[in-house]
Amino acid sequence: MKHLLSIAHLTKAEAISILNTAQELAKASDGPMKKLPTLRGKTIVNLFAEDSTRTRISFEAAAKRLSADVINFSAKSSSLSKGESLKDTAQTLQAMGADAVIIRHGASGAPARLAENRWMEGSVINAGDGTHEHPSQALLDAFTIRKHLVRGGEDLAGLHIAIVGDVLHSRVARSNVLLLTKLGAKVTLVAPPTLLPVGVKDWPVSISYDFDEILPTVDAVMMLRVQLERMSEQFFPSAREYSHYFGLNSDRLRVMKPNAIVMHPGPMNRGLEITADSADSARSVIVEQVKNGVSVRMAILYLLLAGSSEEIRS
Amino acid sequence: MKHLLSIAHLTKAEAISILNTAQELAKASDGPMKKLPTLRGKTIVNLFAEDSTRTRISFEAAAKRLSADVINFSAKSSSLSKGESLKDTAQTLQAMGADAVIIRHGASGAPARLAENRWMEGSVINAGDGTHEHPSQALLDAFTIRKHLVRGGEDLAGLHIAIVGDVLHSRVARSNVLLLTKLGAKVTLVAPPTLLPVGVKDWPVSISYDFDEILPTVDAVMMLRVQLERMSEQFFPSAREYSHYFGLNSDRLRVMKPNAIVMHPGPMNRGLEITADSADSARSVIVEQVKNGVSVRMAILYLLLAGSSEEIRS
Amino acid sequence: MKHLLSIAHLTKAEAISILNTAQELAKASDGPMKKLPTLRGKTIVNLFAEDSTRTRISFEAAAKRLSADVINFSAKSSSLSKGESLKDTAQTLQAMGADAVIIRHGASGAPARLAENRWMEGSVINAGDGTHEHPSQALLDAFTIRKHLVRGGEDLAGLHIAIVGDVLHSRVARSNVLLLTKLGAKVTLVAPPTLLPVGVKDWPVSISYDFDEILPTVDAVMMLRVQLERMSEQFFPSAREYSHYFGLNSDRLRVMKPNAIVMHPGPMNRGLEITADSADSARSVIVEQVKNGVSVRMAILYLLLAGSSEEIRS
Repeated sequence: MKHLLSIAHLTKAEAISILNTAQELAKASDGPMKKLPTLRGKTIVNLFAEDSTRTRISFEAAAKRLSADVINFSAKSSSLSKGESLKDTAQTLQAMGADAVIIRHGASGAPARLAENRWMEGSVINAGDGTHEHPSQALLDAFTIRKHLVRGGEDLAGLHIAIVGDVLHSRVARSNVLLLTKLGAKVTLVAPPTLLPVGVKDWPVSISYDFDEILPTVDAVMMLRVQLERMSEQFFPSAREYSHYFGLNSDRLRVMKPNAIVMHPGPMNRGLEITADSADSARSVIVEQVKNGVSVRMAILYLLLAGSSEEIRS
Repeated sequence: MKHLLSIAHLTKAEAISILNTAQELAKASDGPMKKLPTLRGKTIVNLFAEDSTRTRISFEAAAKRLSADVINFSAKSSSLSKGESLKDTAQTLQAMGADAVIIRHGASGAPARLAENRWMEGSVINAGDGTHEHPSQALLDAFTIRKHLVRGGEDLAGLHIAIVGDVLHSRVARSNVLLLTKLGAKVTLVAPPTLLPVGVKDWPVSISYDFDEILPTVDAVMMLRVQLERMSEQFFPSAREYSHYFGLNSDRLRVMKPNAIVMHPGPMNRGLEITADSADSARSVIVEQVKNGVSVRMAILYLLLAGSSEEIRS
Repeated sequence: MKHLLSIAHLTKAEAISILNTAQELAKASDGPMKKLPTLRGKTIVNLFAEDSTRTRISFEAAAKRLSADVINFSAKSSSLSKGESLKDTAQTLQAMGADAVIIRHGASGAPARLAENRWMEGSVINAGDGTHEHPSQALLDAFTIRKHLVRGGEDLAGLHIAIVGDVLHSRVARSNVLLLTKLGAKVTLVAPPTLLPVGVKDWPVSISYDFDEILPTVDAVMMLRVQLERMSEQFFPSAREYSHYFGLNSDRLRVMKPNAIVMHPGPMNRGLEITADSADSARSVIVEQVKNGVSVRMAILYLLLAGSSEEIRS
């Protein structure tokens, strides 16, 4: 692996290798010395053309725990949205010695352009591009599901996972559909028809418009953030109606399987797609997803930058 | 000590312990190698919902001198002003492995909410909350006073300190009143009645409306920043009149005791609450306050994160 | 050397010493461990009152490769444009223990004020001030020219370099004229009369209004960025006409000497002062300039902060 551009380009074996590495690194992180010397001397650039404090901080924490140097580059979307400019930015970062660039960009495919045009020798890591993919989020979600629901296996065979809400605008949903099914899980999308993308029928998923019907059958429910900033009345009649049909609440929690878990990629709209008590319930693994995010991102950086020959040492 | 939320919650012994630790750390910082390995592997997050470059940089410099990793998180007040959102932010930082969160927030009590709700396992350090408290500023002020005016004692018994100006809007004044009196000093507030808070009569201080009368009796005069951004004509008739009655100038410097010192928490409005020549005079310890701020913040981080069992080593 | 304020204040020997040190450091950077321990424990502050992601990141990467701690301070021009405020900012950074301040400022002379008023004990490095100077850019340009065009000598004697375009607004041009001529090169400015500064006749350069005439005689052509943000119709009739007379394109590349190189300080306006194919041509060393920038800035930091007595070790 040289880059992490999408789940689509990842083999099942590579995905499992990331999850297994993350598991090892999580153990090291729980020890007294959280910091590993693995990436000492490496320079990692956070190139964020869209605001995303959570993802940026998670990658920054992961890189620093591996002793890499981190340089933050917050670019306005405008100056980076032109092709030439992205090229020059990439070549500049390359020339400055960046061993990896973690890129968040409003344009779908921007990370792939960086990597495929060989503008950079370093690794390119997609931290979310347009409505395309957000591979590290899907990997941390799979890691969390595996940790809670799988005993003695490496993949997610036999599990049923519902992804609920604004699939249309969600790169998180796209990456998760690809990864969870690649790992053997059955995935059902639950959303109003207006929030499903054109062509969803060709995806390897089931589709349901009835959250209550599907809920007793799932092992994990992944609530998507309603992207209010991109929303208008055209997608659903009202927030109240959305919550009524597609929001998670304590009534719905009660019909779930005994061990089923509740997930959300954050940040949450408490009271809209999820009630506060559901978010804080015993079923919720939402905070743990954030924690696992650091381990998974450490694993990604480790595998891309340290090579597999070097052992994980604390 | 787990958190530093306010001076009100600090015992006299704890305050003196911070001052003594800062004194030791200042010695180490004056050596050839300013950096100590004490907090290596610890992650410290600067969560600043209000702009404050000075305080943020001071904490960042302190943390880095102790070899901690620092992650800056500049949040807009708006998204953090809602309770739920602060909770989610806290839990996110906790999950990412923050050993301490240094929080500056426009809402009085926000740091206490973080700490008291157990949203975080890590330490919470109040870097200024609303008009409530700014404990690290008071500690560095006390450190500076002690260093200049106290020989052979640990507290400030016998000293008389005037705090002058916009007490109403000042968390610096609140924290200083609590700390200086806790350490045995006599404190006099000097301000026009419009700039004193309701209930000030219950504070353990004297009040004066006449700067010139009080000045010859004080050992230190602490000029407060006129918070022009929160001001209007209702608080005082004009800037000129304010300077005339409550500003520090060279005439006033002359009536002070021989060893009395001039302090200001910065940033100064030169020409308003203090003239340029007063700010730069031999009595002024304003620049030294900034220097001491790094030592005091190192002491706070050291005591909260390293445990008292570990020795200070250079 | 205590500060790096301008090329004007640098002797030829000092300039060559920086270039030679950069050459040594570039070798170390090409090894497996890019990071040197030289400035461990030093604190370097990036004080950028104007946006300049490239220069800031280049200095940050250079400082981190030498193991220094870096603190970023992005100040609005407004609050720093007043003299008093700059003084207070400088004293604050000094008090916080900054060993060096790298300053980018809209006001010509701001770095010199920092240094000459002794507001700071640490080193001051000019990262671009108004239309005055940008010394580290000129040094990296000279380094790049020497590397490509000089065999067996330390200076640039015998070379002919054209600086083309908006000389009027360009601190890069000013610093380069001073440095390149100091190092023995012949410099020709090529620009429309409206984009040449008053008094240019007293500069140690030739002037040409005819790019095509001069082009076959030069060893390097340095294209300046058209500073569109400061431009209006008064400087040239149209972008198209500017490109026609003063832009670099493939036709012009063909008339250049066999080994002549193409330079640009970036960021480029591709299609305006330089066509995309020229920027990406075999003659172009533009990306390499960026790479050399990190080595040259490492050399500057090394010579100012580590002292010449310490050897470069990897």
